Amino acid sequence: MPSDAPAIKRARVEADGAEIVTVGPASGDREAMANRLVEERGLVLVPPYDDDRVIAGQATLGAEIVEDVPDLAAVLVPIGGGGLASGVASAVKLLKPDVRVIGVEPELAADAAESLASGRIVRWDAERTGRTMADGTRSQAIGRRPFEHLSRRLDGVVTVSEAEIGAAVRLVAEEARLVTEPSGALAPAAARFSAPESGSGTVVAVVSGGNVDPERYRQLLASPLPD
Amino acid sequence: MPSDAPAIKRARVEADGAEIVTVGPASGDREAMANRLVEERGLVLVPPYDDDRVIAGQATLGAEIVEDVPDLAAVLVPIGGGGLASGVASAVKLLKPDVRVIGVEPELAADAAESLASGRIVRWDAERTGRTMADGTRSQAIGRRPFEHLSRRLDGVVTVSEAEIGAAVRLVAEEARLVTEPSGALAPAAARFSAPESGSGTVVAVVSGGNVDPERYRQLLASPLPD
Repeated sequence: MPSDAPAIKRARVEADGAEIVTVGPASGDREAMANRLVEERGLVLVPPYDDDRVIAGQATLGAEIVEDVPDLAAVLVPIGGGGLASGVASAVKLLKPDVRVIGVEPELAADAAESLASGRIVRWDAERTGRTMADGTRSQAIGRRPFEHLSRRLDGVVTVSEAEIGAAVRLVAEEARLVTEPSGALAPAAARFSAPESGSGTVVAVVSGGNVDPERYRQLLASPLPD
Repeated sequence: MPSDAPAIKRARVEADGAEIVTVGPASGDREAMANRLVEERGLVLVPPYDDDRVIAGQATLGAEIVEDVPDLAAVLVPIGGGGLASGVASAVKLLKPDVRVIGVEPELAADAAESLASGRIVRWDAERTGRTMADGTRSQAIGRRPFEHLSRRLDGVVTVSEAEIGAAVRLVAEEARLVTEPSGALAPAAARFSAPESGSGTVVAVVSGGNVDPERYRQLLASPLPD
């Protein structure tokens, strides 16, 4: 787990019985350490996003959205390593090709937007992505498999500011009554502040992640709302 | 709407296009005003709890719990006017008579507990019930129809302290990631702090209500947790 992970995430993982190995905030540190542990102890690696099986599992979310929302017009989904967005985009486009699927990133960690625009995986270093409060999207680059999926299936990527992310954490609490971490509020932030008009039909914003330290969360609930 | 209703509840009802008529905090004031408006304007009264149709509607919640939780052992449900608890208890006992259904009240507004223990509807005045932060349970007495339902179908009533209610609002945010008002956190408070052991099987706590003023909510998230 990166050294800058929220304390509550550490506590919850420990409560579930895991042994936590702490590494630096760069995802390269994590990968190197994970590979070393796999070799030394004969463990099995469960990749967080760059894996077809993980992406297929996350695709079930897209399938459920299509099933639940008959007049679906667009789906907004956050991008960190790109696994969740790949799965959701693949399922939605398979079942309903006309529904738009838009990725959402923080402005301060917009490596996926840059990668998709330039046609190759662009890496942002940890110092750069570490500036966003959306700690779940601080991976330095999207994975190779996600890059392929997203290049083919995403209709676009929008970015949101830190102020918009904070305001979205507050609005999701006040209006949807859900507790979200900053990374979890990216898609609602885009839906409220920066998504293009979708015409008629329902727009779904995927809320993913509620691991936020209680004191930090109380601060976020006081975020100013943009005009 | 009573004069001490949370501002956010007023704002949300107004945003839905309603005209709000404000009365004193006593439920008698509310009933008298509602009846006068019905007569003067030819309106239709939708009773909040003392009505078989309203209770039948709330019973669908009990039916859904039974459907969703195969190993159901007990259901904890808050009591204000008693409609929700009546509906849930009726559905659960009809479908699964062995499942225990327990009502939950604030210690400071425990008129239903006293009514059921004494075999007649006992009224607590508004000054007394107004002491609890669980404003959704400040009705001065349970309704006549709820009294009949609950007398026959409830396995008991437990009460929770104000400190336990505040702690439950915080714990529901941190562990279930749901935003609740104090009244909405009564059943989780009982589940955590005062419900009797239920043996094996799943215990369901009904979370109802998330109309809480944002600044007040931020205070509640700092509630101390009992040892």
